[in-house]
Amino acid sequence: MAHNRTLGLYCDQTISVVYVVGSDLLINSNRCAPPGTDFFSVKCTPNVQYIISPPPQETSHLSPLPLSGDSMIIVRMSHASDTENESKLSVRYYGSDKKVLGTARLYLTALEISLDVDADRDGVVERNNPNKGSWKWGPNGHGAVLLVNCDCERTYWKTPDSEKTYISKVSDLKDMSLMVLRTRGPAKLPNDYKLTLHISQSDAESVRVFRSKLTGKQNVTSYSFTSFLNDYPLVLSREVLSQEVPYLGGDAEINFYVEGLRFTDKDFNGLISVNLSVLEPISERVPETPIFTDKVVFRVAPWIMTPNTLDPLEVFVCSTADNYQFLKGMKNFVGKSGHKLKICYEYMNRGDRWMQDELEFGYIDSPHQRFPVVLDSPRDGKLQDFPYKELLGPDFGYVTREPDRENISSLDSFGNLEVSPPVTVNGKNYPFGRILIGVAFPTATKGRNMTKVVQDFLWAQKVQDPIALFSDWLYVGHVDEFMTFVPAPDRKGFRLLLASPDAAFKLFRRLQSNGHGEAKLFEDLTDEESITVDEILNDDSFHVQNMYVQSCINWNRDVLKRELGLEEEDIIDLPILFKLVVGTKHQDAYRALAYYPDMVNMIVLGKHLGIPKPFGPKVDGHCALEAEMCSLMEGLGLKCTFIDDFASYHKLLGEVHCGSNVRRGMFDFKWWNLEM
Amino acid sequence: MAHNRTLGLYCDQTISVVYVVGSDLLINSNRCAPPGTDFFSVKCTPNVQYIISPPPQETSHLSPLPLSGDSMIIVRMSHASDTENESKLSVRYYGSDKKVLGTARLYLTALEISLDVDADRDGVVERNNPNKGSWKWGPNGHGAVLLVNCDCERTYWKTPDSEKTYISKVSDLKDMSLMVLRTRGPAKLPNDYKLTLHISQSDAESVRVFRSKLTGKQNVTSYSFTSFLNDYPLVLSREVLSQEVPYLGGDAEINFYVEGLRFTDKDFNGLISVNLSVLEPISERVPETPIFTDKVVFRVAPWIMTPNTLDPLEVFVCSTADNYQFLKGMKNFVGKSGHKLKICYEYMNRGDRWMQDELEFGYIDSPHQRFPVVLDSPRDGKLQDFPYKELLGPDFGYVTREPDRENISSLDSFGNLEVSPPVTVNGKNYPFGRILIGVAFPTATKGRNMTKVVQDFLWAQKVQDPIALFSDWLYVGHVDEFMTFVPAPDRKGFRLLLASPDAAFKLFRRLQSNGHGEAKLFEDLTDEESITVDEILNDDSFHVQNMYVQSCINWNRDVLKRELGLEEEDIIDLPILFKLVVGTKHQDAYRALAYYPDMVNMIVLGKHLGIPKPFGPKVDGHCALEAEMCSLMEGLGLKCTFIDDFASYHKLLGEVHCGSNVRRGMFDFKWWNLEM
Repeated sequence: MAHNRTLGLYCDQTISVVYVVGSDLLINSNRCAPPGTDFFSVKCTPNVQYIISPPPQETSHLSPLPLSGDSMIIVRMSHASDTENESKLSVRYYGSDKKVLGTARLYLTALEISLDVDADRDGVVERNNPNKGSWKWGPNGHGAVLLVNCDCERTYWKTPDSEKTYISKVSDLKDMSLMVLRTRGPAKLPNDYKLTLHISQSDAESVRVFRSKLTGKQNVTSYSFTSFLNDYPLVLSREVLSQEVPYLGGDAEINFYVEGLRFTDKDFNGLISVNLSVLEPISERVPETPIFTDKVVFRVAPWIMTPNTLDPLEVFVCSTADNYQFLKGMKNFVGKSGHKLKICYEYMNRGDRWMQDELEFGYIDSPHQRFPVVLDSPRDGKLQDFPYKELLGPDFGYVTREPDRENISSLDSFGNLEVSPPVTVNGKNYPFGRILIGVAFPTATKGRNMTKVVQDFLWAQKVQDPIALFSDWLYVGHVDEFMTFVPAPDRKGFRLLLASPDAAFKLFRRLQSNGHGEAKLFEDLTDEESITVDEILNDDSFHVQNMYVQSCINWNRDVLKRELGLEEEDIIDLPILFKLVVGTKHQDAYRALAYYPDMVNMIVLGKHLGIPKPFGPKVDGHCALEAEMCSLMEGLGLKCTFIDDFASYHKLLGEVHCGSNVRRGMFDFKWWNLEM
Repeated sequence: MAHNRTLGLYCDQTISVVYVVGSDLLINSNRCAPPGTDFFSVKCTPNVQYIISPPPQETSHLSPLPLSGDSMIIVRMSHASDTENESKLSVRYYGSDKKVLGTARLYLTALEISLDVDADRDGVVERNNPNKGSWKWGPNGHGAVLLVNCDCERTYWKTPDSEKTYISKVSDLKDMSLMVLRTRGPAKLPNDYKLTLHISQSDAESVRVFRSKLTGKQNVTSYSFTSFLNDYPLVLSREVLSQEVPYLGGDAEINFYVEGLRFTDKDFNGLISVNLSVLEPISERVPETPIFTDKVVFRVAPWIMTPNTLDPLEVFVCSTADNYQFLKGMKNFVGKSGHKLKICYEYMNRGDRWMQDELEFGYIDSPHQRFPVVLDSPRDGKLQDFPYKELLGPDFGYVTREPDRENISSLDSFGNLEVSPPVTVNGKNYPFGRILIGVAFPTATKGRNMTKVVQDFLWAQKVQDPIALFSDWLYVGHVDEFMTFVPAPDRKGFRLLLASPDAAFKLFRRLQSNGHGEAKLFEDLTDEESITVDEILNDDSFHVQNMYVQSCINWNRDVLKRELGLEEEDIIDLPILFKLVVGTKHQDAYRALAYYPDMVNMIVLGKHLGIPKPFGPKVDGHCALEAEMCSLMEGLGLKCTFIDDFASYHKLLGEVHCGSNVRRGMFDFKWWNLEM
């Protein structure tokens, strides 16, 4: 971005300046004219162009022109100089008799300069993109992308790379955005002119810039650590906002590596500018003047969650002293669906089995690099070291938010953080779906909530505009207790599954009317008292409890329909019953728990569903709940596997989904192509 | 905003609900059907409308319809009910032989509800504006406006009204935005339904809501303080996010008064939502369900500065022990221009004469109220009490920002905060002009700056998008030392005046060449050594100093041309010389001071300019600098008055502008009509 520059000349003096190709030098021809001047003439070397504004009436510039009030000489050059002070321009002043009264001289050294980034987002740093200084969303947008360097190149003594002020491995460069300073000009700059790279104080919280001292031909693959530090010095950081960078002379390129330090959040809109200025020295004791500034703008890539409709890559579960049965079921199920099961062992999980609750998998994406990033929940159960110690690593990022620990509730577990498949709502596209979190009613004078710092983080990512659901009616309080999404071959490509006491009662009444009133729930469980369909249907209090549960789910159903643009046909009600309990921790309010294993709390691996085995009433030796579930899912081409999680999960108030986590593939769609 | 609501019916039970007119009730007709149901029929009272979706193939609804899988009954009512449970709908279920198997009954009480604000910005609260729940800039925009209640109704024991949690005077209501809850329905709500008003935790930092208990006919002008507190109870605040509001029955209105508490800032985008929900009770120990929520959105009015081109209303100066001469000049000048001079006396100013530096006048505007607001500088000299103790009052607001005191520099004085007249830049309109502040070069590794909290505040106001100029080259460091704006009858309606050493040297050389080299500056000043034009022109070091000053002003000239869309013809150079001094406080850098009274530091009252008397060289008994100034200004129809500020201001490093302040009229243009 070359701007115009006002320049003063002085009669009988020679001014020597650096000129940046693309800019205009504006010289007031009258300002330094000696008294008595009536005419002036301009002379210059061939590589300098000038015009006089307003244009003189004389057609020839060869003879002196009459000097008018404020006529400007506008000087321009089209190519870099080969030597210092190579080009010249002089203004000569004459009296009424054309006698020379004086001459003002200007020596020019022309430079071509551009600070370049991948503003067109094709993975290559183009030359001087006209839009590099701003950022625009959309397929016709522009602006470079920066990743938070939140992975860790080391596999030992781990800490996210963004916390280190040096580049420790060549592979780390891939996680940064390349920025190239291209210059063309004489071998050296005249008169102590300097180039400086600079950022603002507020941007310095979010970005670091390293320089590569290597030229294109040097091999960077085999380096000792010390020479590496020398080759990639830190240029800009929180401590250094402005630093001189070398002018190499001739036709040169210097590579810089720009590292993102923090995700967009409530107090950071994600945009970062890096500036390159040419500084003109004046004298030792006054600041150097920036005569030209080039600016590039980056946006920090958002953290993106992955819905159930994306391909699964890895399934994570915990091994504990008591969950052998469950693990066996999971191994069988994951094997059947053809995916990889990763087990977190007890030395790491310390008995904490709630793999869903401790972390959420997501990713970050840029035209030059993409990798998964785990969001670590502020829940911090005994599994708390797992995301940092096991997941963080090369090309596997880590992010967390530190809340006020007193305000942490069960709603901060990430069973309470889900994401829908892509949707279109009233014409607005959400190609990454929308984030779903559970909170208390906004009207509630008391109630649990997801902690503010995590909510602020999620909202700030913007590309999966969150929806707040009501989950505080549940004892545990997670949205995954009453809803999930499964892929579907038709309509919007998915169905929303909702727990439905009404659907369960309808099923149970049908069983009763078909003569199965004596069929027992929990029949095959040794430690659980069984109960018949008749007994359930005769319990009026239990029915009233479930009417309340249904009204809570209905409230969420209405919000989901509205905010995800769903129709009735996009929703499937699953027969699930709840019971109300009083939690001493929760201000003595009644809150709900699944009465039998909560089938909606399933794990989705492509067309394979791993569903908590409900232990429902049997008809002809087959569980009627499993049969209903299979019949509802089979129409969508989905295969149900029922996994026994009763003793080791259900009785501890969670199910299959709570006890597992799935890392999935990334979207093909690029977030910067969103229209925002 | 009435949304659809999913409702469950239960066979052989009666459900009684409140219905809000405008919403749809969605009932799954199959869900509660008894086993063996083949047909169903729907019956309702005349004021209830329903449709069945998907529509049944039978044309008549009189005979029972076949019950299909998931057919929905969609219920709607168009008018409020006169009595509780006035309307009824029943769904009857039949077996294959049309034998009745059961009936589900619904009792309905219909309400009309709307929370209303002045979303069309005409000063009147209209009924149920469809856009009241969002905010859009521009003449075709919508959304209500909120003022920060930063004035003080009391004239004693002053504190901004927004710091009080009660309404102390009826006049305070004018500063708040009226919000009306309109309801229509039966005398009372059935079954303990409630209305509640609520805000989010983050919005509660920025807004307070009071209720009026008075009905339209009550006279509110003569009240005792105590009854006033009773009549206008606080409803929502930082402490109470959700509170029940009464349902009055019949056709009713309740007035609320919404008070803004803080200006838009880095961490607050200015938007605030207030919500009204209808709560459905379930049981004592579970939260009440919001079955309907209406939302209104306000934007807090920005603080707007007033440029020199607006009509002056009041001129403020300080009276000190030594400024009699200056005060006399100011009285004469202000009297001549027909305006009011207000003097701040010594008991208040304690010898601090820099009225410009301690405060900046601005205003806030809404469709229902507007008033001036003083921004108090963090400078806090001995004048620091003046803005709060003297200016704050009824319909005169006050705002300040508390910085880290260690970081306060001379650049935090508001001689360093100015605003341009309205401009259009590359097609973008700035009908309120643009704010101008002075800082160090962005490339400077050290230097003074305006403190961050004030900069954040100014940038956040958005409607006068600030421009950062370079003022750290000046010893005092204020933009008003090198620039001002004066009205003009042509072109853009104003001229930018810039101090120009080059213009001064040109003038001095002309004087010399016309035989006035011996003419003396400062001749009439008893305590100042005079100096001749020849001596000035022969001082090479002085010339070099002024070349540096000119280069600094040129830098600002280029920024101002670019950011205000100015051409050369919009700028007038004033002949002013500077000298460089070394300030011990400023890291020993050279910085500039005006060499003779700095004529650009003037006060502009319409066509009258109050200019520091320069004491320049005399030609034929007339000051050549005054003559040049007059000749430059007269073409614009402006009248110059030169005010002697030499001893009591210039020698103390300020001039007329630094020592005065002008409160001006407001713009006719409404800020909400800006296209952003």
